[in-house]
Amino acid sequence: MLGSPGPGSQMVEAQLNVKPDFSARVQESEQPRSQVVRFGPEQPFRLDAGVELAPFQIAYQTYGTLNPERTNAVLICHALTGDQHVANTHPVTGKPGWWETMVGPGRPIDTERYFVICANVVGGCMGTTGPSSIDPASGLPYGLGFPGVTVRDMVRAQAVLLDHLGIGMLLAVAGGSMGGMQVLQWAASYPERVFAALPIATATRHSAQNIAFHEVGRQAVMADPDWRQGRYLLEGTSPRRGLAVARMGAHITYLSDAALHRKFGRRFQDRDNPTFSFDADFQVESYLRHQGITFVERFDANSYLYLTRAMDYFDLAADYDGVLANAFKGTKTRFCVISFTSDWLFPTPESRAIVHALNAAAARVSFAEIDTDKGHDAFLLDEPELFAIVRGFLESAAAARGLAAARR
Amino acid sequence: MLGSPGPGSQMVEAQLNVKPDFSARVQESEQPRSQVVRFGPEQPFRLDAGVELAPFQIAYQTYGTLNPERTNAVLICHALTGDQHVANTHPVTGKPGWWETMVGPGRPIDTERYFVICANVVGGCMGTTGPSSIDPASGLPYGLGFPGVTVRDMVRAQAVLLDHLGIGMLLAVAGGSMGGMQVLQWAASYPERVFAALPIATATRHSAQNIAFHEVGRQAVMADPDWRQGRYLLEGTSPRRGLAVARMGAHITYLSDAALHRKFGRRFQDRDNPTFSFDADFQVESYLRHQGITFVERFDANSYLYLTRAMDYFDLAADYDGVLANAFKGTKTRFCVISFTSDWLFPTPESRAIVHALNAAAARVSFAEIDTDKGHDAFLLDEPELFAIVRGFLESAAAARGLAAARR
Repeated sequence: MLGSPGPGSQMVEAQLNVKPDFSARVQESEQPRSQVVRFGPEQPFRLDAGVELAPFQIAYQTYGTLNPERTNAVLICHALTGDQHVANTHPVTGKPGWWETMVGPGRPIDTERYFVICANVVGGCMGTTGPSSIDPASGLPYGLGFPGVTVRDMVRAQAVLLDHLGIGMLLAVAGGSMGGMQVLQWAASYPERVFAALPIATATRHSAQNIAFHEVGRQAVMADPDWRQGRYLLEGTSPRRGLAVARMGAHITYLSDAALHRKFGRRFQDRDNPTFSFDADFQVESYLRHQGITFVERFDANSYLYLTRAMDYFDLAADYDGVLANAFKGTKTRFCVISFTSDWLFPTPESRAIVHALNAAAARVSFAEIDTDKGHDAFLLDEPELFAIVRGFLESAAAARGLAAARR
Repeated sequence: MLGSPGPGSQMVEAQLNVKPDFSARVQESEQPRSQVVRFGPEQPFRLDAGVELAPFQIAYQTYGTLNPERTNAVLICHALTGDQHVANTHPVTGKPGWWETMVGPGRPIDTERYFVICANVVGGCMGTTGPSSIDPASGLPYGLGFPGVTVRDMVRAQAVLLDHLGIGMLLAVAGGSMGGMQVLQWAASYPERVFAALPIATATRHSAQNIAFHEVGRQAVMADPDWRQGRYLLEGTSPRRGLAVARMGAHITYLSDAALHRKFGRRFQDRDNPTFSFDADFQVESYLRHQGITFVERFDANSYLYLTRAMDYFDLAADYDGVLANAFKGTKTRFCVISFTSDWLFPTPESRAIVHALNAAAARVSFAEIDTDKGHDAFLLDEPELFAIVRGFLESAAAARGLAAARR
């Protein structure tokens, strides 16, 4: 399974005696266990920060077959801690892909009809160039030497990938949370390449509260002495405790109060009474600790800093004189905006603001608020109404674009 | 201002070369700059955990004068990170008392009419026995050797203080958040000593989400290597970074999304554009960092662990066969329950549950939900409607108890 490490990561391993798990981290960044397209020094990728990345690579997965007319491509944009492994076993965790309920043969995003693409975002840690990639200037991982990235950068990189794949217009682009931000950016930056857009559980800008939660997570990472000012890969340490705390805090925001109550209530762990200790006394504590611990096995701490920052910076209207409708002026893209009643991280009013702007731009838009107690994470979970809406919207888009009807 | 350190803290300083700030922490625990009552080995204080604390001390402040009939005493219960310094300059921070808008001459809780008492809770760090106090068995700070505490313990200690002060029945007991939990516990444990009760922005039990947020805070503290398994006072370190992260995260839950938006929105700090760095780019980040940094100057990390745990354990109905109304059976106390529309930590339904239980117990109860965007922290802030309700409720209670009417 494991590809041989590239020259960069071999050098790091040899020169710096990087511990095995960190060489694995660098290896997944350089030689991802997925498809990858590499651009050499002659094809730099320019970031909003004004810096060029070269070499530059994009790791991605595809599912299904591109039709001869090249009209059935669906791009999926992943969320903050997601990656390109949408619908295959994850190479690091061995777990199912993060959206297997949504994407696959016969699923709402049906890989027997559509050619599905998902790329790891720029700044990520699963094979697209990011802070754990090798900086050609030093031969060592970038760390904090990596330039800041934006949601616009993520989308521009995906456009480069589509050019490489020879895909002009996407049938649809879909994603939730940070993935939804990318969907909106896609529709604004490349309206001619997006036939249909599915932003789910998202917003056109990060709220002060959301920025605040992200900042606490970043501070937790940076407070860990093993973070080493971002140089942990070089120094053979890992800010595991800080990153786990960050994940625990973020995880609470992904669930609703009701979902936590339903799943855990105030039930004690393995006992009936309090222990008067600081062990995980309540089941909810044990659950959160598990979430923190498993996360650090698969995610790079610096990527967490860069990607949370990108979300914080996201403010689509700001690029259009503060008028959100201008981002969609003259668009022919058809939109389906989806929110969840119990999502308090990206609550329904954020989606309504998108819909209002699209209406103001005279765009074709439908909107669904799905009644669920599962919170923000609902977009990743088994939500029959979500599945039905996505399936129906895609079928309608496919029909409008002249694809053959689905076999039922 | 500074009292001379007691023998215990001198010993620690001499033997362990504790750094000045930590000897100051032990000193405030042993020789608080407030009133204090000390109980010797012959008067142990028994905790719910089944352990006896001896010696045991309670640090407290009083304001106003107890009338000859001893009928005008109002007990104030402080919240998680509050203390006895309700309405005087804080001896550590030099800032005003935490409830000076509410308590003082002519204020809603009028110290010209009422004799106001507030004690530091057991497990605290401002002079009532807690984890930074000296364990007589070792002559060193308890640290994690301190037994677990409960809200019931806090209330029982306050009852001991009232016995010492010769006060039988309180005119009123009032408090918000963890203070409100103590108010409810007071009414349940000592109904004959509580003429009127004012639980504000509170609940009869901590929700799974609230436990989850507390657990993240505790993990942030315990992840800090300078926490040293709770032995930081002995080892001359301080888990400042971990405690600051815990405070930052908690602080978000004290404010509403709307309040954060109103105060900070997405405004950048000292500039117009993103820096693409991990400095505090947004004003909200800078604000939170400030909250974290100032908190660690005045609060003990282990106290934070113990007191958050006490809140998590609080479940009033559990002591009454799961039937909340039984906690108030036959009560003659008059209640005024107050919540705030934008408080998502202790939302209005929690207060309604209190009111329903009181109704089921045929208690005298009024309820007010105050419309504000200030979130949970509203109980500490300038809220004219809150002031008017508290003033009116106390005046009515005072009249019912035969106190002379207020001079207007």
